[in-house]
Amino acid sequence: MATASDKHRTKFLLDEKDIPAKWYNIMADFKTPPAPVLHPGTGQPIGPQDLAPLFPMELIKQEVSQERWIAIPDGVRDVLRLWRPSPLYRARRLEKALGTPAHIYYKYEGVSPAGSHKPNTAIAQAYYNKKEGVTRLATETGAGQWGSALAMACQMFGLQCKVYMVKVSYQQKPYRRIMMETWGAQVVPSPSPDTQAGKKILAQDPNSPGSLGIAISEAVEDAATRDDTKYSLGSVLNHVLMHQTVVGLEAKKQLEKADDEADVLVGCVGGGSNFAGFVFPFAADKLAGRKKKLRIIAVEPSACPSLTKGRYVYDFGDTVGLTPLVKMHTLGHSFVPAPLHAGGLRYHGMAPLVCKLFDEGVIEATAVPQVATFKAAVQFARTEGIIPAPEAAHAIRVVIDEAERCKQEGKRRTIAFNLSGHGHFDLGAYDAFLTGKLQDYEYPAAKIEEALRQLPKVQA
Amino acid sequence: MATASDKHRTKFLLDEKDIPAKWYNIMADFKTPPAPVLHPGTGQPIGPQDLAPLFPMELIKQEVSQERWIAIPDGVRDVLRLWRPSPLYRARRLEKALGTPAHIYYKYEGVSPAGSHKPNTAIAQAYYNKKEGVTRLATETGAGQWGSALAMACQMFGLQCKVYMVKVSYQQKPYRRIMMETWGAQVVPSPSPDTQAGKKILAQDPNSPGSLGIAISEAVEDAATRDDTKYSLGSVLNHVLMHQTVVGLEAKKQLEKADDEADVLVGCVGGGSNFAGFVFPFAADKLAGRKKKLRIIAVEPSACPSLTKGRYVYDFGDTVGLTPLVKMHTLGHSFVPAPLHAGGLRYHGMAPLVCKLFDEGVIEATAVPQVATFKAAVQFARTEGIIPAPEAAHAIRVVIDEAERCKQEGKRRTIAFNLSGHGHFDLGAYDAFLTGKLQDYEYPAAKIEEALRQLPKVQA
Repeated sequence: MATASDKHRTKFLLDEKDIPAKWYNIMADFKTPPAPVLHPGTGQPIGPQDLAPLFPMELIKQEVSQERWIAIPDGVRDVLRLWRPSPLYRARRLEKALGTPAHIYYKYEGVSPAGSHKPNTAIAQAYYNKKEGVTRLATETGAGQWGSALAMACQMFGLQCKVYMVKVSYQQKPYRRIMMETWGAQVVPSPSPDTQAGKKILAQDPNSPGSLGIAISEAVEDAATRDDTKYSLGSVLNHVLMHQTVVGLEAKKQLEKADDEADVLVGCVGGGSNFAGFVFPFAADKLAGRKKKLRIIAVEPSACPSLTKGRYVYDFGDTVGLTPLVKMHTLGHSFVPAPLHAGGLRYHGMAPLVCKLFDEGVIEATAVPQVATFKAAVQFARTEGIIPAPEAAHAIRVVIDEAERCKQEGKRRTIAFNLSGHGHFDLGAYDAFLTGKLQDYEYPAAKIEEALRQLPKVQA
Repeated sequence: MATASDKHRTKFLLDEKDIPAKWYNIMADFKTPPAPVLHPGTGQPIGPQDLAPLFPMELIKQEVSQERWIAIPDGVRDVLRLWRPSPLYRARRLEKALGTPAHIYYKYEGVSPAGSHKPNTAIAQAYYNKKEGVTRLATETGAGQWGSALAMACQMFGLQCKVYMVKVSYQQKPYRRIMMETWGAQVVPSPSPDTQAGKKILAQDPNSPGSLGIAISEAVEDAATRDDTKYSLGSVLNHVLMHQTVVGLEAKKQLEKADDEADVLVGCVGGGSNFAGFVFPFAADKLAGRKKKLRIIAVEPSACPSLTKGRYVYDFGDTVGLTPLVKMHTLGHSFVPAPLHAGGLRYHGMAPLVCKLFDEGVIEATAVPQVATFKAAVQFARTEGIIPAPEAAHAIRVVIDEAERCKQEGKRRTIAFNLSGHGHFDLGAYDAFLTGKLQDYEYPAAKIEEALRQLPKVQA
């Protein structure tokens, strides 16, 4: 079926049988091994047994696997069918509005029932836990995208799900909480009296608004102290990023159907999972010495610029300092980002595999401010229809900038990005923008410097 | 591409070139003409000139056309491409949970950027208005589905859009308002000081919560008193229903791809447009004497049962009594339905074309209570993932009942329904259900009797 023939064609769809049969594991294609993950107490590399209380063995194996391709179980693909393959759009109306010679494509992950890319890994994680006899998962959520995804995934596999939701989000985003409850999850505001960690915080401050760091501590404690329960994480880890590669693998096929080839790839980065899922299958070509001119751009908020302003060192994954130490670009685990509306990008660190690609010069990074980001989001909504999640709007800002550069230079480049989710639960942020109340945050130089002084001592 | 071969296949997709090229006009297939629309003052049939202040001529022509097929302009199809053809799903996980031999399919209209089927007609209406030199559209919205659709459509064609939003919804559903504003519409709470009608109501009661009837009056006045402005309606009218037939035309093709044939079709009815759009192309077969055993079921809320409990007489389309008189099943234009969460089904009347099919026995109707409806909605969300709009959940209730009957009778029937939208902006209703606070409303016999006594005197 020659699809590029229709000059108005807007969507490039794949058949259900084209849902990838294997995940792509970028670990196989690095020339040097990634820095080992270290035990926070001993400073020594950790082994599978250290992670066993928290994760099922199959996911631990995936975390350290060097196999290039890992088969996606049928039981996972049968749930992914509910929304995958996701569409690749040609943004013809945006191109026209910009008057750019660029071709702009977006992979739309908002078609999942939870509204983002997060279910791609939530389904896989629930599957492996179920298979190994786990009956209950515990996790944390900030803005609610990840909690929603895991709630849905647990429901699909008959697992119980407990979500520790940062208290301020629990209060401000009741719809995200209700969404999780509709899918059967138990959601509590964190800090909660359900854990020792939560009780301790509440004793100090009964009105604590909570933080992702506290919520992680609660979920990890819950999993570590109950035999029936494991812990589940929505970004950063190698296996999580690998589960997201279905996005890029599909996008590659779809660009072929469009008879086009990417010159520039763009994705927003918080923990790094939607970006990694989209770009790793393309980065494979660069690692192999092909497609040398392909630019891959990670976009972060200028108020939380871990790649562009952070240090590439060992740090804790959480705020409290309980997790193993990973080598990554970090602003320091004690850095608390400004209250950006793109809650999913408010993370002090970055997935180690994304950092390694950045360190090796395979990808580049840039940071954009909040108001300009929402300007791009509204321009996108008014041309393409879809109202993007604030996180994904960071990618759109850079895509529009690149497309305008194409216009100035008279160059016809192909730009593709990951539209990682819709903004149906973020309209308060749009309201702030439309009424002129949205603000930019200054570069938090002093706060970052302070946080970097508190990095753990163990450096390889 | 033989698609039925995969026994796990979940989605039946069509290519963009399969977006219907023509709308189906059921008027061509009635054996007797529909009852004429009457002027509220004279009681005489109205002509095109009576509607010209409110609608562009092309839509007025469509309203009375007897042509079976009306070409969809390329300018309309080029916007429909943004989400059409919409997917037809086989609800395999729901079937399994019910243990039913039935095959259950759903056409999912929630994939549009506005989240429902409403843009199918909004786009067409904006297109024809633009073509005839109109620069601004006025409309009313209750729960916000229709206002969102028209706001997006106006933005796509560079029209201004003014939405009179029922004040209580404006206050309770800020996200729907912001969505419209994101697409560039001006939204005011109705009653507003922007119209004489609004001023009059505000003078009597500055705290009036508003009603759809008042909002219609304001939008109609706005259009009638400004040269640059026409009025736009989201349901009930013949041309609106016709624009929705893309839904059923696609579904027919998709069922063929699934190598299946419908025994039962189900849709919810408020004004009738999503139901009509889905079933009219199938009803055509019944009108032609084919597919005699096909059952077509319209589902309404038991608290607003116009088809099952209303009278088939001439009545006003609005609450205030300003519109032409149409023959329809009505509870009386002064009937005010209980505050159901399915705001889109709170309408005293019903599209005349749907009523005619019901009167002729081509379709049947049933009414379901609110709590049982949400029980079905949650069961659907927990199996299929998608959280349905409360309106569409009425259809799901009956689909599950029919599927359970199949199980009891040991019959393998094929049931298909229109999942007209998602429930992302209705999670408050889900919360009420999950916490046991949702209530059923008793059949409002006395209120209906009272409203029926106030029917207009002009009866043919």
